[in-house]
This record gives sequence, C-alpha cells and structure tokens, in this order.
Amino acid sequence: MPEATRTTERGFPTTERGVRTIELDEELLTDIRELIKDNARALLLNILADLHPADIADLIENLGDDGRRYVFGLLQSEVASDVLRELDESTREPLLADISHEKITEIVGELNSDDAADLIADLPSDVASRVLETIEAEDAANVQKLMRYPEDTAGGIMATEVLRVKMSDTVKMAIRKAREFAKQGFELYNMYVVDDSGELLGSLPVSDLILQGPGRKMRNVMKPVVSVKALMDQEEVANLMQKYDLVSVPVVNERNQIIGRITVDDIVDVINEEATEDIERMAGLVGSEEVSSSVFRTSRIRLPWLLLGFIGEMLSALVLKEFHASLETILASAFFIPLIMAMGGNAGIQSSAIVVRGLATGEVRLGQLGKRIGKEFGVAMTNGIILSVFIFGVSYVWFSDVRFGATVGLSLLAVVLNATIVGAAIPFLLERFKIDPAIATGPFITTTNDALGLLIYFGFMTLIYL
Amino acid sequence: MPEATRTTERGFPTTERGVRTIELDEELLTDIRELIKDNARALLLNILADLHPADIADLIENLGDDGRRYVFGLLQSEVASDVLRELDESTREPLLADISHEKITEIVGELNSDDAADLIADLPSDVASRVLETIEAEDAANVQKLMRYPEDTAGGIMATEVLRVKMSDTVKMAIRKAREFAKQGFELYNMYVVDDSGELLGSLPVSDLILQGPGRKMRNVMKPVVSVKALMDQEEVANLMQKYDLVSVPVVNERNQIIGRITVDDIVDVINEEATEDIERMAGLVGSEEVSSSVFRTSRIRLPWLLLGFIGEMLSALVLKEFHASLETILASAFFIPLIMAMGGNAGIQSSAIVVRGLATGEVRLGQLGKRIGKEFGVAMTNGIILSVFIFGVSYVWFSDVRFGATVGLSLLAVVLNATIVGAAIPFLLERFKIDPAIATGPFITTTNDALGLLIYFGFMTLIYL
Repeated sequence: MPEATRTTERGFPTTERGVRTIELDEELLTDIRELIKDNARALLLNILADLHPADIADLIENLGDDGRRYVFGLLQSEVASDVLRELDESTREPLLADISHEKITEIVGELNSDDAADLIADLPSDVASRVLETIEAEDAANVQKLMRYPEDTAGGIMATEVLRVKMSDTVKMAIRKAREFAKQGFELYNMYVVDDSGELLGSLPVSDLILQGPGRKMRNVMKPVVSVKALMDQEEVANLMQKYDLVSVPVVNERNQIIGRITVDDIVDVINEEATEDIERMAGLVGSEEVSSSVFRTSRIRLPWLLLGFIGEMLSALVLKEFHASLETILASAFFIPLIMAMGGNAGIQSSAIVVRGLATGEVRLGQLGKRIGKEFGVAMTNGIILSVFIFGVSYVWFSDVRFGATVGLSLLAVVLNATIVGAAIPFLLERFKIDPAIATGPFITTTNDALGLLIYFGFMTLIYL
Repeated sequence: MPEATRTTERGFPTTERGVRTIELDEELLTDIRELIKDNARALLLNILADLHPADIADLIENLGDDGRRYVFGLLQSEVASDVLRELDESTREPLLADISHEKITEIVGELNSDDAADLIADLPSDVASRVLETIEAEDAANVQKLMRYPEDTAGGIMATEVLRVKMSDTVKMAIRKAREFAKQGFELYNMYVVDDSGELLGSLPVSDLILQGPGRKMRNVMKPVVSVKALMDQEEVANLMQKYDLVSVPVVNERNQIIGRITVDDIVDVINEEATEDIERMAGLVGSEEVSSSVFRTSRIRLPWLLLGFIGEMLSALVLKEFHASLETILASAFFIPLIMAMGGNAGIQSSAIVVRGLATGEVRLGQLGKRIGKEFGVAMTNGIILSVFIFGVSYVWFSDVRFGATVGLSLLAVVLNATIVGAAIPFLLERFKIDPAIATGPFITTTNDALGLLIYFGFMTLIYL
C-alpha cells in the first residue's frame, strides 16, 4: 500500500474534512483506561477503528504494560504492523517479547522489507530465526540481506522493493509493470531502468508515464539518475536528498546494480533523528534518551557526562587550590569566579554550535579551519571588549579599585577569546578524527573552558598582585 | 519542472553513474578565482554548465563580493532562478540589489509561486513593486496572496500551483489535465478533487491514474484527504506530515477551499530549519547565525545572551559576597564552586533538553508536567546520590574532614535535584505562555542554576559552620 496515501485510506472517514488529530489528553486516556479495566472489547475496537496507526501508537505509549499488551492484542495484523513501525523501541521490544512467533510472522508479512528487517533486528535471536524460517523464502532473503548493512547507512534504511524496467520496454509495458508492482502494495514513486545484469541506467517518475505516448521506448524517455552507494552514511544521504530536492533515491552496489531505494519519508525520520542526536549530545546525554525511557535508563544515559564533568571540575578545584594565596589575599576575586566560568562556557558553546551544525549540514568543511578561527577571533574581540568594559565598570563601582577592575576585565577578555577559539576548533579536530563533533558542544567545551578560564583568571591575579 | 527530477535533467550527463558531488575544496576554488580574475568567461561557462544549481550556489557562497556578482551574471535566468532558491539570505540580498528589475522579472517568471514570493519579499520595496507590476497579472496576484501569510505558517511555505479536478471528471480527463499541468513545469504529485466552489473533497496520487480504467469517474477513485489550514505553524505541518508519512499536503482556507499545497521537500527544509533554530537557541544565539554571517552580525547575534549571562552572574557574585564570611572561614569551599556550578548546569541542561525536544516533536505534552517532574526527581536522586558519594570521598581524602565532606556532598545532591527539576519545569512554563521553550535550554538554565546552586551551597556551609 502506498505510504503516502495510507493515511487517507484508513482512519479518516470520507466525511472528515481538514486535519483529524486525536487529542490524547488525560481525559481520553482515563476513558480508555476505564474501558480496558472493564474489558470492554467492542467499545475499544470501535475507538481503535477510527484511529490512524500513528495515533494508536501514541495511545499505546501512554498506557501501562498491561494496557499496552491488551490494546495491541486487539489489533489485526495489518494494523498491528503499521502500529509497530511507529512505536518507540523501548515500547516495542517488550511488546514483541510477548507475542507468539506465528503472530509476528503474520505481522512481518505485512511490512516492507526495510521495516521488516528493523523489526526482526529487535527480536530475541531465537524468535528472529524462527520468524525468518517461516516467512516466504524471498522475503527472508531480502530481510537477511538488509540486516547485513549497518543501521545508519543507505543500505540500513533502504527498502528492496524496486520497480525495474528495461531499456527496450515501451511505456505501455512499463505501465503494466507499475500496475503489477502497485498490486503488491508498494509505493509508486519512480521506476528504474536497468540492463540485463541489473545495472542502473536511468529513472522515470511513474506519474510521467501519463505524459508519454504508449509506444515510446524507455531508453528514449528515461532520465539520468542520481544514486547512492549502500554504505553511504544516512546523514550524507539526507544532505544529498535535501540539497538536490529528491523524493526518492536508488541505492546501488559496487557494480552499480540497483539493490534498493530510499524514499523521502525515511529521510525525514533520519533528519529528525540526527538533529535530536546532535541536541542530545550537546546537552550531554550519552545514548538516546526517549521521553518514555525508564528512570533507571535515563539516569544511566545522563551519568557519564556528569561524571566526566565531575572529573573536569576537579581540575578546576586543583587550579583554585594552586592559587589559594591569591584567593586569600583578594577574597573578592572569588566573587567573579562564576562570571569567568559562565562567560567562557557561553562563548565556547556559541562558537562550537555554529561549527557543529555547519559540519552536520555540510555548510562548513574541514579545510575552512583557518578562515573560521580568524572570524571567531574578530567576534570574540568585539564581544570580549564590550564585556570587559562592563565588568571593569561594575567592579570599579563595587570596590573603587582600578587595578582590581582592570585585572578582572583583562582576564574576562582573555577568557572569552580563548573559549571562543577552543569552541570553534575542537569540532574541527573531532571531525578530522571521525568523531561526531556534536559531543564537543555543551558539557565538554564548558568543562574544558572552566579549567582554562580559571587558570587564566588566577594567572592574571597572581601576576598582578603577588 | 518536477522538483524531484530537476536534478537529473540538468547537471548530470547521461554517462554519469552514481552520485556526482562536486568537492568544493580550496584547490577548485583557487582555480575558479583565477578564471574570474582572468575574465575567462568561456572556461567558466563550461564549468558552470556541468554543475547542479545547488552546487553553483555553494560555489557562489565561497567567493568574494565581486566574484559572486561575476559568476551570477554569467547565469541564464532559468539557472539563475534555481541558484537563487539555494542561496543563503545573507548572500542573496546583496546580489539581488545589484540586478536590474528586468532581469529579476525574468527570474521570477521561472519560479514557482512560493519561491517567487520568498524572493520578492527579500527585495527593496521599490524594486519589489516594480517587479510585481511587470510580471504576469496572474503570477502577481498569486505572489501577493502568498506574501500576506506569515513566513512560518502553512500559507507562508505553500505553493499555489495545484492540480484541480472535478468529481465528475473521468480518469481520461484527469490525465489530460495532468498533462496540461506538467507542461507548465509543475510537480506531479497529487491531484485534488474539488466541487464548483473550490471546496476540497478528495485527492489521488497522479501515478495512481495508470491503475484505473480511463472511463471511471474521479468521485469513485478519489481518496479522503488530510489538509491543513493556512495559518497552521510550519513546525506543526512538519510534525503532521512526518507522523502520517505524507509526501504532500493541501492547504485550505476557512471555507475548506484549496488554496495551495506543501510538498515534502519544503518540509525537509522546515525540519532542518527548526532543528537548527533549536540548537542555536540552546547555544544562546539570538537570531539566525549563518556560517557566512559577517563578524559584526555574528557578534550582534551572540552578544545578547552573553549580556544576560553577565547580569545573571552578577547575581552569583552578590550571593558570594553575601556569604563572604563563610568563604573566609573555610577557604576550601571556594575550590568546589566550579563543581557546584557545573553539575547544576549540566543536570539542568540534560533534563531541559529532553523536554524541549519532546515539546518540539510533539512527544511531550503540556499536561504531563507533573508526571515529568516525578520522573526527573527519581533520575536526579539516583545520579545526585552517586555524585555526592564521590565528592564526599574526594574531599575527605583531600582535607580529612568528615563535616566538610558531608556539607559539600549534601549541597551537591540538593543542587543536582534543584537544577534537574528547574531544567524540566521551565520549558513547560514557557510553552504554556507560547514562548519557544528552546530558549530555556543552555545559557538561561545554566545562569539560573548558577545563582541558585551557589545559594544552596553557601546556605549549607553557613548553616553548618557559622
């Protein structure tokens, strides 16, 4: 069934105009929980029949374990398969563990090869192999092929269902093949022209068939095609499809034979996934924290960065201990520790965020390090001088001491300069060593700049006062 | 011309297999700069002819002002219009300011209504009105209609070119209309079935026409349709299209008449834009900093948060001044100021990031505040206790003082608890008051938690020691 029209075929009665979105407020949830408690199957089935699979998935994620199993058990395998595609992994795994492998086999039969492979990858290995034994041989072969590709590559997100035609096919024959393909429930976006060995030669949007005379040969109507290799990183595929405004892209092997295709709805998920991942890493979450993750799992995802930060701040403590003489002599220097740390942290995050995002979307390239640093120097000087003048003013008013004010001001300028440049440079460094630069932003840069900033600040204090 | 195949029609010669992406390394740029200096038009035209408009845009962004004007001047209006669509605003505006309004009129004629409206909105108002006077009356009316919608709504990103058919049209008639539509250079995704007043009744993917007998009426083959209202926020449109895997969605007015359509390639841009915006706000950038923004503009975008942070850290300074007696009595308490601040900051960013992202993608709803806080309390207790035990150990080893170690440990636990809950709660608060929660993450939460954390820390110190 075509992805794009599934929405409109089920769950949206013809009389419904405009968008139908179920408001999953606490009230509706309470009602549904009541119905589950009362075992009111008929009423629940009635409600579920009106819901889109994506909304049923939403509903299930908002229920307890028993409720989830109960509601999922009510679904027919066709709907169940759509709902499974939409569920968070953390909800999906326990649900799958509960279902008989016969039911799973039925559900897998309803899925496209890419979704089937994702689902089977989530199963316990004994269930997975039993399911692979029972589904159709062709499907099993496709799924096993897909499962060999790393999850975040073109091969990992492609579907193997592809509409192939030959150079010598006429438009009329191509239409017949497209009808056959659609009957099997696959999306009709593009058809791909291949030679006898399966090598990709060109493509044509299926809708363009209506623009051509029935007798024309595919070789005369096909268009050149952009393809991606199976091991291309999914983020690169997303950037490419976005850059060239592609709705779907064929995936080829080393011999340029077409082995699958990626459609833009998968890419939308990739873009969101990658953006969420960047944000998570910037915020210091190690691993993917889902809104529905358990307290225990959430703690485990957050703890590593907190511990790394802990160790980093021990360095800061050592710096302060080293300079305790200055601290004792001018106790007021302690008052501006938070300012020095925060300004360094903020300036560093600002410069690193723009580089991290730029590297992710391809707007910043590795070769531009020098140019970038030059620009960041200018920005840091501008803002650093403004902030320094302010802090000089504040501390003069506060302590009536020009020397102290000048020392704090000078330190702040140096700290902002250092933090901005460190913030911009570290992501380049990580990218060069093929580490995701997103981990550089947030806690990592802040912690580094805390220790460096305090070193600079108390270095100046000691130089000038001791 | 269909968006999705434009790539394959120009810039990718038939002999080209696989992906052709130009590597814009410094070497190629240097070569092109040489050619510009030598005024080698023919050679440059040769290179440009082989490039995709998106790549030409990339190239132009990497040139100086004169180079930009020179290369852009070489382009024919058909290519120039595609290149303009791909350029950053900061590059586009000065380029447009240089071009005669006749040339702009030519370029606008090549664009879809949505891109034309975006472009005209960027022109100085006198040029804009002259362009609107010279383009075709129908185009001008469309563009002016579009310019009335706020930029970030469904109306602001839709195109007005829509393939309309009637209930009583046969498949054969619909095919004829689709051919007519394609001849004007528009994308063939979906056709929309409307009544005499233009009210939207159903839709059909154009490719599905080949599946139907030519004599069937549209009323019998059309499918129910999901539409969005013109003033829906673009982020909501993106979430909806992603949730229901839609390739395009029609936009309707208050009377349910179709006034435009949004295709998924625009939505991909929206998703990236919104993710970038979230990341920028988390990093404390006010306004959109582009990689190519000038030093002056970049400074201006970054300064507001630095100044707000500055003011916030003055509060921290006041807290420390207030507690200077404790600081003097136990100088060692200063050593852990960075730790207290950093742990509060990091814990706060972690809990806020997950709420901010969840609110943006619709996974977290306003009504879930209580549930969320409960969970965050559990997470903060778990990690807070672990960190407290560590810091107790470290400070005991360091100072051999149980009371001091216990005070620091207890403070750290309280600070992590407070910061985590503040971090999770503030985004809910902002969302309730319709302020983008993304501004809550990063500097804002960190600064708030700095002052609160120091208050807690020295509050405990004072209670226990003075």
